[in-house]
Amino acid sequence: MKKIGIMTSGGDAPGMNAAVRSVARRAMSLGIEVCGINYGYAGLVAGDIFPMNRSDVGGIINRGGTKLYSARYPEFAQESGQLKGIEQLKKFGIEALVVVGGDGSYHGALRLTEHGYNAIGLPGTIDNDIPYTDFTIGFDTAVNTVVESIDKIRDTAASHERIFVIEVMGRGAGDIALWAGVASGADEIVVPEREFKVEDIAQDIRNLRSRGKKHTIIVLAEGVMHADEFMQKLKQYGDFDARSTVLGHVQRGGSPTARDRVLASKMGAYAVDLLNEGKGGIAIGIEDNQLTYHNILDLFDSKHKPDLSLYDINKSLAK
Amino acid sequence: MKKIGIMTSGGDAPGMNAAVRSVARRAMSLGIEVCGINYGYAGLVAGDIFPMNRSDVGGIINRGGTKLYSARYPEFAQESGQLKGIEQLKKFGIEALVVVGGDGSYHGALRLTEHGYNAIGLPGTIDNDIPYTDFTIGFDTAVNTVVESIDKIRDTAASHERIFVIEVMGRGAGDIALWAGVASGADEIVVPEREFKVEDIAQDIRNLRSRGKKHTIIVLAEGVMHADEFMQKLKQYGDFDARSTVLGHVQRGGSPTARDRVLASKMGAYAVDLLNEGKGGIAIGIEDNQLTYHNILDLFDSKHKPDLSLYDINKSLAK
Amino acid sequence: MKKIGIMTSGGDAPGMNAAVRSVARRAMSLGIEVCGINYGYAGLVAGDIFPMNRSDVGGIINRGGTKLYSARYPEFAQESGQLKGIEQLKKFGIEALVVVGGDGSYHGALRLTEHGYNAIGLPGTIDNDIPYTDFTIGFDTAVNTVVESIDKIRDTAASHERIFVIEVMGRGAGDIALWAGVASGADEIVVPEREFKVEDIAQDIRNLRSRGKKHTIIVLAEGVMHADEFMQKLKQYGDFDARSTVLGHVQRGGSPTARDRVLASKMGAYAVDLLNEGKGGIAIGIEDNQLTYHNILDLFDSKHKPDLSLYDINKSLAK
Amino acid sequence: MKKIGIMTSGGDAPGMNAAVRSVARRAMSLGIEVCGINYGYAGLVAGDIFPMNRSDVGGIINRGGTKLYSARYPEFAQESGQLKGIEQLKKFGIEALVVVGGDGSYHGALRLTEHGYNAIGLPGTIDNDIPYTDFTIGFDTAVNTVVESIDKIRDTAASHERIFVIEVMGRGAGDIALWAGVASGADEIVVPEREFKVEDIAQDIRNLRSRGKKHTIIVLAEGVMHADEFMQKLKQYGDFDARSTVLGHVQRGGSPTARDRVLASKMGAYAVDLLNEGKGGIAIGIEDNQLTYHNILDLFDSKHKPDLSLYDINKSLAK
Repeated sequence: MKKIGIMTSGGDAPGMNAAVRSVARRAMSLGIEVCGINYGYAGLVAGDIFPMNRSDVGGIINRGGTKLYSARYPEFAQESGQLKGIEQLKKFGIEALVVVGGDGSYHGALRLTEHGYNAIGLPGTIDNDIPYTDFTIGFDTAVNTVVESIDKIRDTAASHERIFVIEVMGRGAGDIALWAGVASGADEIVVPEREFKVEDIAQDIRNLRSRGKKHTIIVLAEGVMHADEFMQKLKQYGDFDARSTVLGHVQRGGSPTARDRVLASKMGAYAVDLLNEGKGGIAIGIEDNQLTYHNILDLFDSKHKPDLSLYDINKSLAK
Repeated sequence: MKKIGIMTSGGDAPGMNAAVRSVARRAMSLGIEVCGINYGYAGLVAGDIFPMNRSDVGGIINRGGTKLYSARYPEFAQESGQLKGIEQLKKFGIEALVVVGGDGSYHGALRLTEHGYNAIGLPGTIDNDIPYTDFTIGFDTAVNTVVESIDKIRDTAASHERIFVIEVMGRGAGDIALWAGVASGADEIVVPEREFKVEDIAQDIRNLRSRGKKHTIIVLAEGVMHADEFMQKLKQYGDFDARSTVLGHVQRGGSPTARDRVLASKMGAYAVDLLNEGKGGIAIGIEDNQLTYHNILDLFDSKHKPDLSLYDINKSLAK
Repeated sequence: MKKIGIMTSGGDAPGMNAAVRSVARRAMSLGIEVCGINYGYAGLVAGDIFPMNRSDVGGIINRGGTKLYSARYPEFAQESGQLKGIEQLKKFGIEALVVVGGDGSYHGALRLTEHGYNAIGLPGTIDNDIPYTDFTIGFDTAVNTVVESIDKIRDTAASHERIFVIEVMGRGAGDIALWAGVASGADEIVVPEREFKVEDIAQDIRNLRSRGKKHTIIVLAEGVMHADEFMQKLKQYGDFDARSTVLGHVQRGGSPTARDRVLASKMGAYAVDLLNEGKGGIAIGIEDNQLTYHNILDLFDSKHKPDLSLYDINKSLAK
Repeated sequence: MKKIGIMTSGGDAPGMNAAVRSVARRAMSLGIEVCGINYGYAGLVAGDIFPMNRSDVGGIINRGGTKLYSARYPEFAQESGQLKGIEQLKKFGIEALVVVGGDGSYHGALRLTEHGYNAIGLPGTIDNDIPYTDFTIGFDTAVNTVVESIDKIRDTAASHERIFVIEVMGRGAGDIALWAGVASGADEIVVPEREFKVEDIAQDIRNLRSRGKKHTIIVLAEGVMHADEFMQKLKQYGDFDARSTVLGHVQRGGSPTARDRVLASKMGAYAVDLLNEGKGGIAIGIEDNQLTYHNILDLFDSKHKPDLSLYDINKSLAK
């Protein structure tokens, strides 16, 4: 292996830069040249590719977002797009590729491997919604951002004895809500993976109030419904002084936590080692605290499983 | 002076606890007893009043929200409410009062003074919209919270080369937008105090893009319009990849900054000294870095003036 | 099981309060009464014990330190101390005990179990130096505090092109140095578990400088030697503009990270469930992402193993 | 005015980058070209000078340290050094200069002005020890960093009921100690500007303990003595469980607060406007909330005055 490429794709996530740094530095330490590809698959097709040196990835381990930019590029699903991409890889002498992104990005990696260019996917998304990995790069940072925000909102909730419905990200997955809910001592966690009745939640709130707990924090995964809609439903069951708030795009940014930086560093180095062994068409994961990899095809047949024990723990701790 | 009362009123703001601590400790150091009044004017009327000791205000200087709770209580505008409040003050032997809150809270303080109970207002609100003070308690913390949030959102804006319209609090005032806009290097600041044309802003964005600045941060004061409405208007003038986000209630909470804690400590001690001199019906301010006070009546005739030099500075720095 | 006790012991760690809350709430949800014991074993012997209710553990999940206080109490190693403690347990009707603390605290737990009072240890220490658990409560927070500090020190290091030797905690263990070193992109990590030559490090620095990297961050575990001593040794091998800094007690405090709060919540609930099943003389761990428990006697025969793969990864990424 | 230079000098301070950005952008908006000078006076003499464009100062407003690097260069006190510097200014066509740094940096600015090159000093130092300005760029950030650290240390102090002697920066000035002491609710503040007896402090601690306050925070300015020395003296007056900690270099770094970014932005723009009016040999300040400037010669005859009202307020609040 003489030269590899690295790119980020899909929504940005804290720790992507740490992953890029790790891929680049590990490769260099093995005598492999590295090319950065800007704007994900769009940049690959357009040839927005540059040789990286050591200092290109210096001072980025602590930065949110991605220095390699990102872009959505559905055109890469078509073979014409893939062929153009491969042309560029040939032109730059790139023999294999690491893609950091969500599962959407893995399709492209699989196609490239099928065309003879080994590509490996790294799970970079705050949503933690990728199969065969307990944690994705960016998830820990997003959860901490949410927890810090809820800690602040609780100041107001407690001061005014109000109910707050706080909508958090996660796309179809409840992971951010589950972790942030337990970590912030939420009174209720509402996720797509578990059924609930608004009526029951209203009753829980009344029970808590009768026992002296006058403010209420409800953490709602965006995959369930909008915070405002939830609040309106809740108000049908009682004369509640409730507010809704959507945490929004702050959840995607910020300096990555230590955990995300370490995870990104481990996964990046591991991906290079696997490419160097001639592997491709796989995605890296961390399962039971061990680095693992799986065929990308297996990921498409599978679904990420959130840690629902957190849901049950919270039920008993909040009551 | 043998005994004073202290309460917080209106929306909560970081630093209210530091102010309560300062009032209580200063009074105690002068041999004056202190009563805490929960829930603002509502608690005053209801007699939710308790004697405070040293440790009641220990460990709260760094806490957001208000340990004395807050509540809106429009009934205090009527004389019947005021008389009930005075009855309670008599019952507890409270001779004078400090109220920490927004200008809405000052009306009550003025009425109490007219009824013979000296009351002094401390400006506690994140909005910085109170006349005769350059800064209110809570403003500095809110601005820093906004700036940290924008720093995070910029990660995504830069990674995806997007436009973000970020709505910040401030009620009718543009202060939070002005300070946070300059501090975060916003491309545009939109406040109620300055006219603007969405068309011009669209043109600015195009100019920046032609010079290589591919992402755009627009800080919008809530007093102008909703972020979503603004974004829709903006999109009428170009094919922009824009997102809107409302920072929401996180802006009210959080551990107060050093600046807010010091300001609250100074103002609280000053209020006690003035009460001890027999003064009432006044509001404390900080003007040109000096502690000042003004008759509350003067505040009602006046309007807070934001530092609009910030608007002009930002224009030249963002271009 | 009708009543259990909970206490914290040894050095404080962020997340201890979250653990206490979890133990108390889980027990209450099972109809078990809970007593809080202040000041660890010292308080147990002195009878500083009080019945806890729901609100005693409200609003503490996000607080550093321990609301139950802590104290060193070597006297509990003697049987006379143990017997006095048991007398108190009987007096208060406490049937079993959860102790949150370092491995020093586990001896006491074992003794109590031998005397017929089941006790379970929870690993609460920033040092991560306890066997049979991948992570201790407080470790993740400490690592993040260290990383944030190094991020700040790097500002100065880069601006002045200096070498910084940064001493971090961990007692005899290198875990904090390893994780924080990788996460902050340190140029060198020095831990007790790996041999090193100061001469080689000096050579590494010269190599980096010749390749354009003008500032250097060295993360040094306190178990190796003092920062100042290390710096003096380093200067023997070159004319380096070096500074040493000891991060100190900030590493023990602060609001716990989401990860620590979740870990504490899980472990606390699990400990109650195990006590309720009649188990004692064990310590809780998290291994390969699963909650586990081991006989405390096994812990004394074993030694915690840090993740030394981090050391090797850093070597290749820093070069 | 066609071209100006900008450099940073002396110890780095958060907000220096914001100042550089403001100087550069303001100048550009007036049609003035800008050169960046690396490494302060050392770089000036060596000709380490480059033309800046808009994007050179993009994305730096939120970064600690200084992108233009800094260095100590006592040689510039000699005329030979100054003449070399002027040669470089001529060579690059730089007509005037802005220097961001401590008062040491002002000497060079004065010399250059005497040689016919107008130079203006901006107060950039965390120490706040410069005359004719209430606040320096970097001070607010340093104070907040200290306060956050003390908030963390207090967790341990309270959990173990210990005394902590916390040494903070400030060179000969007590400003950081005064502000951080009041903001963190310190029990004692020890600064060079006020006399004290360790014996009295020991007595204060005993008094507080007898009233139930079991832990103690002492904030000590480095200009007084070392934390360890102070602790040893304290222990001569009682059997105290005390710890000392030196906050160290973290105080110099970190993302600047909103306040520091706004101050730097205002001062930078103002300096360009003054240079454009033909002024030089002056230093910018903020006094009573207004931008001001003074002849640098006046600064050398004067001494910064800390806000000692904070000392007295703290005395009454801590008791």
